[in-house]
Amino acid sequence: MLADPEFSGLTRDCDMRNVLSARYASPKMNIIWSQEDKIVLERRLWVAVLKAQRMLGLPIFDGDIEDYERTIDTVNLESIDKRERDLRHDVKAKIEEFNALAGHELVHLGMTSRDLTDNIEQVQIMRSLHLVRDRTVALIGRLARRSIEWKDLDICGRTHNVPAQTTTLGKRFSMWLEELLLAFETLEQLIETYPLRGIKGPVGTQQDMLALLGDKKLVGELENIVCAHFDFDRPLISVGQVYPRSLDYQVIAQLAQLASAPANFAKTLRLMAGQQQAGEGFKEGQTGSSAMPHKMNSRTCERIGGFLNILRGHVTMAGGLLGDQWYEGDVSCSIVRRVVLPDAFFAIDGLLEASMTVLDEMGLFEPMIGRELAAELPFLCTTSFLTAATERGTGREVAHRIIKTHATRAVAIVRDGGSSDCLAQSLGGDSDFPLSIEEIRDLIVPDHGNAVDQVELVAQMAEVVLERYPDAVHYRPAPIL
Amino acid sequence: MLADPEFSGLTRDCDMRNVLSARYASPKMNIIWSQEDKIVLERRLWVAVLKAQRMLGLPIFDGDIEDYERTIDTVNLESIDKRERDLRHDVKAKIEEFNALAGHELVHLGMTSRDLTDNIEQVQIMRSLHLVRDRTVALIGRLARRSIEWKDLDICGRTHNVPAQTTTLGKRFSMWLEELLLAFETLEQLIETYPLRGIKGPVGTQQDMLALLGDKKLVGELENIVCAHFDFDRPLISVGQVYPRSLDYQVIAQLAQLASAPANFAKTLRLMAGQQQAGEGFKEGQTGSSAMPHKMNSRTCERIGGFLNILRGHVTMAGGLLGDQWYEGDVSCSIVRRVVLPDAFFAIDGLLEASMTVLDEMGLFEPMIGRELAAELPFLCTTSFLTAATERGTGREVAHRIIKTHATRAVAIVRDGGSSDCLAQSLGGDSDFPLSIEEIRDLIVPDHGNAVDQVELVAQMAEVVLERYPDAVHYRPAPIL
Amino acid sequence: MLADPEFSGLTRDCDMRNVLSARYASPKMNIIWSQEDKIVLERRLWVAVLKAQRMLGLPIFDGDIEDYERTIDTVNLESIDKRERDLRHDVKAKIEEFNALAGHELVHLGMTSRDLTDNIEQVQIMRSLHLVRDRTVALIGRLARRSIEWKDLDICGRTHNVPAQTTTLGKRFSMWLEELLLAFETLEQLIETYPLRGIKGPVGTQQDMLALLGDKKLVGELENIVCAHFDFDRPLISVGQVYPRSLDYQVIAQLAQLASAPANFAKTLRLMAGQQQAGEGFKEGQTGSSAMPHKMNSRTCERIGGFLNILRGHVTMAGGLLGDQWYEGDVSCSIVRRVVLPDAFFAIDGLLEASMTVLDEMGLFEPMIGRELAAELPFLCTTSFLTAATERGTGREVAHRIIKTHATRAVAIVRDGGSSDCLAQSLGGDSDFPLSIEEIRDLIVPDHGNAVDQVELVAQMAEVVLERYPDAVHYRPAPIL
Amino acid sequence: MLADPEFSGLTRDCDMRNVLSARYASPKMNIIWSQEDKIVLERRLWVAVLKAQRMLGLPIFDGDIEDYERTIDTVNLESIDKRERDLRHDVKAKIEEFNALAGHELVHLGMTSRDLTDNIEQVQIMRSLHLVRDRTVALIGRLARRSIEWKDLDICGRTHNVPAQTTTLGKRFSMWLEELLLAFETLEQLIETYPLRGIKGPVGTQQDMLALLGDKKLVGELENIVCAHFDFDRPLISVGQVYPRSLDYQVIAQLAQLASAPANFAKTLRLMAGQQQAGEGFKEGQTGSSAMPHKMNSRTCERIGGFLNILRGHVTMAGGLLGDQWYEGDVSCSIVRRVVLPDAFFAIDGLLEASMTVLDEMGLFEPMIGRELAAELPFLCTTSFLTAATERGTGREVAHRIIKTHATRAVAIVRDGGSSDCLAQSLGGDSDFPLSIEEIRDLIVPDHGNAVDQVELVAQMAEVVLERYPDAVHYRPAPIL
Repeated sequence: MLADPEFSGLTRDCDMRNVLSARYASPKMNIIWSQEDKIVLERRLWVAVLKAQRMLGLPIFDGDIEDYERTIDTVNLESIDKRERDLRHDVKAKIEEFNALAGHELVHLGMTSRDLTDNIEQVQIMRSLHLVRDRTVALIGRLARRSIEWKDLDICGRTHNVPAQTTTLGKRFSMWLEELLLAFETLEQLIETYPLRGIKGPVGTQQDMLALLGDKKLVGELENIVCAHFDFDRPLISVGQVYPRSLDYQVIAQLAQLASAPANFAKTLRLMAGQQQAGEGFKEGQTGSSAMPHKMNSRTCERIGGFLNILRGHVTMAGGLLGDQWYEGDVSCSIVRRVVLPDAFFAIDGLLEASMTVLDEMGLFEPMIGRELAAELPFLCTTSFLTAATERGTGREVAHRIIKTHATRAVAIVRDGGSSDCLAQSLGGDSDFPLSIEEIRDLIVPDHGNAVDQVELVAQMAEVVLERYPDAVHYRPAPIL
Repeated sequence: MLADPEFSGLTRDCDMRNVLSARYASPKMNIIWSQEDKIVLERRLWVAVLKAQRMLGLPIFDGDIEDYERTIDTVNLESIDKRERDLRHDVKAKIEEFNALAGHELVHLGMTSRDLTDNIEQVQIMRSLHLVRDRTVALIGRLARRSIEWKDLDICGRTHNVPAQTTTLGKRFSMWLEELLLAFETLEQLIETYPLRGIKGPVGTQQDMLALLGDKKLVGELENIVCAHFDFDRPLISVGQVYPRSLDYQVIAQLAQLASAPANFAKTLRLMAGQQQAGEGFKEGQTGSSAMPHKMNSRTCERIGGFLNILRGHVTMAGGLLGDQWYEGDVSCSIVRRVVLPDAFFAIDGLLEASMTVLDEMGLFEPMIGRELAAELPFLCTTSFLTAATERGTGREVAHRIIKTHATRAVAIVRDGGSSDCLAQSLGGDSDFPLSIEEIRDLIVPDHGNAVDQVELVAQMAEVVLERYPDAVHYRPAPIL
Repeated sequence: MLADPEFSGLTRDCDMRNVLSARYASPKMNIIWSQEDKIVLERRLWVAVLKAQRMLGLPIFDGDIEDYERTIDTVNLESIDKRERDLRHDVKAKIEEFNALAGHELVHLGMTSRDLTDNIEQVQIMRSLHLVRDRTVALIGRLARRSIEWKDLDICGRTHNVPAQTTTLGKRFSMWLEELLLAFETLEQLIETYPLRGIKGPVGTQQDMLALLGDKKLVGELENIVCAHFDFDRPLISVGQVYPRSLDYQVIAQLAQLASAPANFAKTLRLMAGQQQAGEGFKEGQTGSSAMPHKMNSRTCERIGGFLNILRGHVTMAGGLLGDQWYEGDVSCSIVRRVVLPDAFFAIDGLLEASMTVLDEMGLFEPMIGRELAAELPFLCTTSFLTAATERGTGREVAHRIIKTHATRAVAIVRDGGSSDCLAQSLGGDSDFPLSIEEIRDLIVPDHGNAVDQVELVAQMAEVVLERYPDAVHYRPAPIL
Repeated sequence: MLADPEFSGLTRDCDMRNVLSARYASPKMNIIWSQEDKIVLERRLWVAVLKAQRMLGLPIFDGDIEDYERTIDTVNLESIDKRERDLRHDVKAKIEEFNALAGHELVHLGMTSRDLTDNIEQVQIMRSLHLVRDRTVALIGRLARRSIEWKDLDICGRTHNVPAQTTTLGKRFSMWLEELLLAFETLEQLIETYPLRGIKGPVGTQQDMLALLGDKKLVGELENIVCAHFDFDRPLISVGQVYPRSLDYQVIAQLAQLASAPANFAKTLRLMAGQQQAGEGFKEGQTGSSAMPHKMNSRTCERIGGFLNILRGHVTMAGGLLGDQWYEGDVSCSIVRRVVLPDAFFAIDGLLEASMTVLDEMGLFEPMIGRELAAELPFLCTTSFLTAATERGTGREVAHRIIKTHATRAVAIVRDGGSSDCLAQSLGGDSDFPLSIEEIRDLIVPDHGNAVDQVELVAQMAEVVLERYPDAVHYRPAPIL
């Protein structure tokens, strides 16, 4: 069987779908990266250049540009593919297709392939960054809402996965929210400063466009028209054949950074689900396991971590583009960018959709949360014992040593089924320790310190962002797979 | 424009094709990873288990299994997708689809999802590994042929990109061939030892199948039947929910290793093209540049490097699966494996196809090779001067210092347009150096040392491989994009 | 303060220690990669070549080689460093140092730098691989012992971090053991097949050694002597300046693969510690937290995961060496290999030491394990209900649906503080379900299926390995930081 | 020999030096990351907190703080190491050492380990970022100077490593300069926005400090004092045990991005060296090859690429920290950060030092540059023929086809030793082409288009940066290895 992979006898088209696109990314992100839309964008660039060229004095006849404009949306992928197979050059194939549709040979004058493709890919990147920004805004809104909702719900805080001190559930969400806000700030800076390559010619000198238009000033004007057409604030000045690929790296690295906060959230929700304290939500009709009917798995949270893992791989791919251009440039990056640019955006889009869904659908099992807090409380308060002891004049490290001895014993007793009150009894009974049993017991109360203020302050920071993008806040993801 | 990505007004299905599959991978690799074929394979596993269960005593009626078998090839992706959207569980969707087609509820008895999916994905991996092995054999054949073809064609060998010593072009190919043979040896070992997870149940204890069949021996027999059905030599013994994901990592890392030799070849061919000594071939009608009609770019060689870069990213993704299973397992790896398994095989497949094509189509410009060798020869022979001087009794390091002084000067003269004979003149005229000008000139001959023997020896090693896989040798890739 | 980093006023040597070496790697691994030992090895290679050259007829006087041998261990790093700063070439510095010590200029005749360094680095790699193999054997022994020790201790198996089915603690260890055995098998193959570059000259043609010795057969003999001297079975045949860097990649990727099983173990132990079911051990006097005296953190387990993360980065570095050699070679890889080769071995060494320590020191809190199993048992048995129901003739998917409905409800009741017996009551009371309450209750027993047999079988596989390396089994790591 | 790695008989300290620190990083960067300086910084933090606590009302006696201050610089690493081996906790060891030196138990009151270590590591990061920024300024200055120096030196521009169009050498440098300026802009933003964790306690709630000081306002004041002490503009608000590790990722990813432009420069210089058009410089006395005395290798440029490769690995390590915190945090990141933070800064520091050195020392071989330009010029002008032909009314794609046919033939003639004038003759003789031989010959002149203006514009952008950091511009790296 292994020797002959065609065994199934099914005749079919071999062309596989992109799994990130088909299963996880939203329709908007799919449109941005669709072949058809890219071709339309490219044709719009050609037409924008043509119009500028006519305006700047090139002898282009009335009606010719209109012949092109009329066919912009007539996208026949098969015909273009066929041309490419003959020419072994994708841009040349697209030129000849567009010319054939319009009945002229006017487009691409004074241009080289990368004048077309680099610019349009940057437009796709910029549009994707805008979409990611908007979705992140919607995620910020949700994290902020959850943090406020549970700002004073005391829980057993854990570090190293073991009980540490009291905190609040809202503060836990606030932690992820602040991490996300940091990444969001960088994302906004990236969008603000991201430059367009512009119309620069094969080695970046603008030689051909200069020859065509005959004047440096006109070349600059043409470039400004193109920038404005695609809503970019600034062109690059001195590129070679391509724009610096470290820009691609910066974009992909930014997406990975953005994924960290939601992935931290998802990982902790998986842990809480294991303690039956929370669940990511379970739709009517959903099946948790094909074998075990009772299972309610955190599969969406697991998937969020998986998206991050994929993005890490994309960072490696984009990292391979750094410092790898020979002379005025090559396209050793071409196949890499064909994969990594759409796929990284599909992955972050899927991750953001999934994160919003979990935040909307997740459930809390408060009795379980309360049970844990009650059981662990004496241990969570050991720093209070320590502070109180030092205030009575015991040296910090001496007190630390005494408490540790009793706490270690008490933990052992609890693990054997004893009550956690044993800690107060044991420690209070130690004559080297300055607090009595009762004084210790009085200190055993949930104390979440400054948590509520922190939550509110971070939520205010979030609010500032939300007000800047009011339309983005109310996005609701479609049901996920 | 950026704010509204739907601007093009084209209505279309958002589902993007997988670019590695559509543009670069061969039809065979595409079939292995197609959705339809996977479903057929899964159904074959279910039927194999059913038959084994009937044979081992489960009360399954005549005709029931046949009802399933009859519909194995009736794959309706839309219907399965619809079920998955309701159930939010892909395997459950497939069970219900197959049951509905057959009119029974018999499949998947005693099984859990991963009994199905893990095994079938391993079958896909194994079939892909076989295909990669066969294509590598075909590549080995080509490299061996080229190495023999040019085994005694003297060229200017370069290290650090500067002329070093004479070697032969065949030896250059032989170098890559031996590197490829090393990776091939590991690939064969991987195929030989790769184990199947087997039917193990939700946490790997085989509890349910044991309950069904009532006897450990029968459970073992059922597993052996499944292994044999898919041509695996051994099952794993003590897995959890899934087989160890370090197996996936091993596979992907192997593919990256395999890519090194062809990528070294491609990189050096790009360099040789820059010196106009060789070219990757240029089809009738092909366009090199949409702007510069004369250009003959090494775009396929650049692409080979790009595939390797992509594989490096896949290694990062698969590396993220190492050591990341909680307890008896989870599917935090699920989305990662959906991407990385097919895509890594598509990438290596595309790389191998492209490498074969370049090896078949490449051309050599011997006059340019000869010109360089003639110009650099005096410098390539400095180690001969060194050896001769030490044989005359001069200390090695003393001789090294003298030669370096004269060689450095000579290089400067040549760079200013002088003749490279100046080296012999200058060095021979130095009274501290034991050789005369004439003796030095006599040493200035191309000397490729042991190169031919090495080429022949490596070609013999390749021959051993080729004889083991006679059917694989003669594969010819389809024309590439 | 930020502007002036020299603020502390301490005068000191800036040279930082290697943290992986200093804090985590064992003395043996440190010795292998020490500068001094490398220099001694290099000098041994030179002397071995000298002896061979004398034996094969070169006119080398009595006593000269002995002058070199006498000073082999006289390693003065400062002197060598000083020479390198003048020459900007490390090997030339080492030649001149050794010559100065011996009072001759005989070494390195017919050789190039990489004849020295590549071979010696391969000797270091091979010795490190042997050490890693031996430590892995010791780890296999420990995992096997633990798996047998707890082979029938029933526990609540978890998938997706939520209770799934009964398994045994021994089987959990057996899972990691089998994963480790798979990686070990590959490691052994690597050691067995790893080839030495040999003495090949600047572009690999052996031109200079051939000129010196005057005969191809003698060149071959010299190479065999060198191989034998360092215990290698085979030399490479047709290299360029360096051996294929994909060999480095293979080694590093192998180390990462090896790290997976211990990291899976460590991650699950962190999870179990969070449930207070197990701990990695806590030394007398150890401090868990400088603030919280009671804390007992799984810091060593966290560190094991950290080592794996570091190794993933090393794989990326080594992956950058794939396909990146120009022509006959360069040393764009040099600085990368200086970092990645020792550091990756230090990391895996530290990981193995840490894993053994945890396996030796870890503790189990059986009452907590028992408590969880009792609480979850009804849910762990749902597949038994499913199997029993299908045996009564209910369709598998119908039964699945019914059980899921009742299980989902029962989970909610338990989370609100109810008893888990509610599942039997609810399901048994459903007239669509073929089993009575009592029948269901009878099925609620821990059933670990085939776990014990699996554990024993894998332990036998381990035993075969242990018997092959009897000396390696009994290694005990020194106390870790 | 392999079995016994202790063979050398040398007794020595196993502790290896950090190769990036010892061989490549500058003294300043080494000081920032030295163990001693870190300890001094930590003690300064403790003392700053103590002073703030006293000021804010805690009963701390006169003279006590001074006892600590007096011993701040008394760093005894051996003593601290010994304590750590006993306590298995590094911070606890440092507390007890400092207390023992001062004779009090006052420091670390109300603090947890990460209040110390996270903040101080951030100070180290911030100081390193400042140093990297200053060095980048010095590199920008050098690239700008070179770009202006050669702004109108015509060269044969290459894309895909083959001749494309005329450009200038200055523009080539300008290309890398603009790429570096883009990364620099992001680096400045990072420095500007990078926040300090602050004093937050074990789970981030500030519970203990609040208990000590008794007032939220005082807690806020203490934190502001600490921020100001270390020159940070803002603290984080709602962290857990640690600051978000995505901040570490952002820093490391930024360093990799910064490395791209110098690595592009270095790679192209390697290529130019292969054509004998430029060299990275060669010191008096330097040895190029231990075998081949004439060799002048681009080893520093190769090393620059190597540093980038290492940084890519560091990005993978730092990427593993994303989304990997459980609950309020753990230190699964600890060992990773111990490696990646100093090493990544050492690598970028080494890369910047090396890049400056090459820019200072590099040489140009103008006759070789001129020779290439003359030989390739007819081909470089094909786009001029294309533009001229379309201006005469020939369709762009028709003209492209005709030129391609003749250019392809002409290339073949040149490769066989013919003159490149054959292109004008052949194309001008084609009656389908609208230009005569003479008209074509007139178009064969070096035309670098807009290159000079571009160079000057980018240099002006650089000048703005240089004026902002006047002290940083004049840095000169020490001689490199």
